[in-house]
Amino acid sequence: MIDIDVLDRNIERMAASMRTRGLKLRPHAKTHKTLEIASKQLAAGAVGLTVATIGEAEVFAEGGASDIFIAYPLWVDTHHADRLHQLATVATIAVGIDSVEGATAMGRSLGADAGSINVLIEVDSGHHRSGVLPGDASLVARAAANSGLTVTGVFTFPGHSYKPGMPMGAAHDENRALTQAAAELASAGFDVKEISGGSTPTALLEGETVATELRPGVYVFGDAQQLELERCTWNEIALTVATTVVSRHEAHSGNLRRIVVDAGSKILGSDRPGWATGYGRLPDFPDARITALSEHHATVEWPENADLPTPGQRLRVIPNHVCLAMNLVDQVTVVQNGSVVDRWAVAARGRNN
Amino acid sequence: MIDIDVLDRNIERMAASMRTRGLKLRPHAKTHKTLEIASKQLAAGAVGLTVATIGEAEVFAEGGASDIFIAYPLWVDTHHADRLHQLATVATIAVGIDSVEGATAMGRSLGADAGSINVLIEVDSGHHRSGVLPGDASLVARAAANSGLTVTGVFTFPGHSYKPGMPMGAAHDENRALTQAAAELASAGFDVKEISGGSTPTALLEGETVATELRPGVYVFGDAQQLELERCTWNEIALTVATTVVSRHEAHSGNLRRIVVDAGSKILGSDRPGWATGYGRLPDFPDARITALSEHHATVEWPENADLPTPGQRLRVIPNHVCLAMNLVDQVTVVQNGSVVDRWAVAARGRNN
Repeated sequence: MIDIDVLDRNIERMAASMRTRGLKLRPHAKTHKTLEIASKQLAAGAVGLTVATIGEAEVFAEGGASDIFIAYPLWVDTHHADRLHQLATVATIAVGIDSVEGATAMGRSLGADAGSINVLIEVDSGHHRSGVLPGDASLVARAAANSGLTVTGVFTFPGHSYKPGMPMGAAHDENRALTQAAAELASAGFDVKEISGGSTPTALLEGETVATELRPGVYVFGDAQQLELERCTWNEIALTVATTVVSRHEAHSGNLRRIVVDAGSKILGSDRPGWATGYGRLPDFPDARITALSEHHATVEWPENADLPTPGQRLRVIPNHVCLAMNLVDQVTVVQNGSVVDRWAVAARGRNN
Repeated sequence: MIDIDVLDRNIERMAASMRTRGLKLRPHAKTHKTLEIASKQLAAGAVGLTVATIGEAEVFAEGGASDIFIAYPLWVDTHHADRLHQLATVATIAVGIDSVEGATAMGRSLGADAGSINVLIEVDSGHHRSGVLPGDASLVARAAANSGLTVTGVFTFPGHSYKPGMPMGAAHDENRALTQAAAELASAGFDVKEISGGSTPTALLEGETVATELRPGVYVFGDAQQLELERCTWNEIALTVATTVVSRHEAHSGNLRRIVVDAGSKILGSDRPGWATGYGRLPDFPDARITALSEHHATVEWPENADLPTPGQRLRVIPNHVCLAMNLVDQVTVVQNGSVVDRWAVAARGRNN
């Protein structure tokens, strides 16, 4: 269930912040996988879209997006190469690489037309997932150029921003890593056109940045993680899951006072970082906590001073990680002032390779 | 990717154990959501199917299943009632209830034909999720009967079996709770036809049980949770996710020696109980651990004494919780002796309400 007014405000706030700072916005569409929302982002001034997979790129290119960055170190075999070439006939396509082997394989699979695909070197800015050390960026860039690819810049995802108190430090790490990697490429003779940075927790921080563009995703909806990281407010939550109370239990013999609602990991997703207070939040009951989640049950510990809801009562739940929730449904309900105004297909649902 | 020989052996092992013990098997189809697998289970002697939602029941009834138990305390409004009535025209349908309010609402919504739907009272045997205390079972049963519903028995899910060392204790708890609840119903004058128990971790334990039927689900595939609970062996794992190494990192400045494979929470699911050693396992590298998972990346810490795989290498991953993995794809690849022999639609994927 998406509140379209909140969604529109979130899209405009991020776009306005980028405009003010002279940064390009390339929102990550893996969050919503929805053509209607991508259109809103592009209409608000986004220069293009970010996606995670070729499958997502195909959906958004077919939907009219003309400039797409697959921000992932793809391993490109000939089957992937065919799909990338097909995409490049309808849109400007860039992909990530983070190894000499990956660059070589990509160039070999793409063949004579490899130059039609732009590549950005992924740099590890402290998340320690994929990405080369900044000092190794030119090594990978040279391998890419030698394989016939067009190197256009560097990118990073400061995923270590997803911890309380970390966004500011992660933003500094990101800036330092991008600065060093871009300098490495420049001194190796590359024309560094794009320096692309990360995440919703860091994107609205007003610090100095060497980045030319940012790729936040979650900001369109917000979620319980962003709330608990204090990266969004309750009023900025655009997506909730409509649930019904199916079970109700007063405390007895040491067991907790709880209700169960009919939304589990197959609709909310089950991401729960160690610092989170639960598996999601209830906007109308901020003191309630989802202490257990199974596939079709969320067990909600209820505050002592509040009446337990009754079976049949409808309650909204904010997922911890909204990108997972969107990938679990084929369609979303769009509401405005509490009334259903539209339904949107989650066009790239399941297009995860 | 499903190994059909392992799948067939798993289906037969459970069926044989139930036959030997004179127990009826009603496997939980939420695990696989697949008509071909349900057919195999029924052919091996299952008396019917268990599902979690009306949507799953609709898919399996349309696929020919004639006896379906929705083992969930449904809140039934008139829309749900229409769907249940429709289902009851093609199959024997039972549903769970765990409250007087739920029973009353269900009877009211189903109207004059309420008696065509069987109900089982859900009992809490120690998982403390949904289910009434065993001593309250007859209270709910009487409300159901007064609402025109046909009460056929009691059921429980001993979900607290999902902890190392717990399956035996949980099986005892299950037996005690079912015994008490069934006795409560009998002394209130009900004909207790079904006493339905739980889970894959407990189903193969050979202890005394009052149950007439069991509802294991995960046993068809196994998964990393069952492995780490020692409820299945490596040779009993029927489902793995095919992944490719996309990033590779020797240890440096305190960071771990790791690879990244292109399977994240959008294909594996992100369930990770506190006792699990990671977010899944690699059958060909049992010492490797998936220490971090994002949407499209699994970060795999690599054992010191083994060579790091190279980018492009294919590695199989066993999901922690296979029910989530099946719900994330529209189709599975069926293999036999390493060759692809079929593709099956995950017919009930996303049918979670």
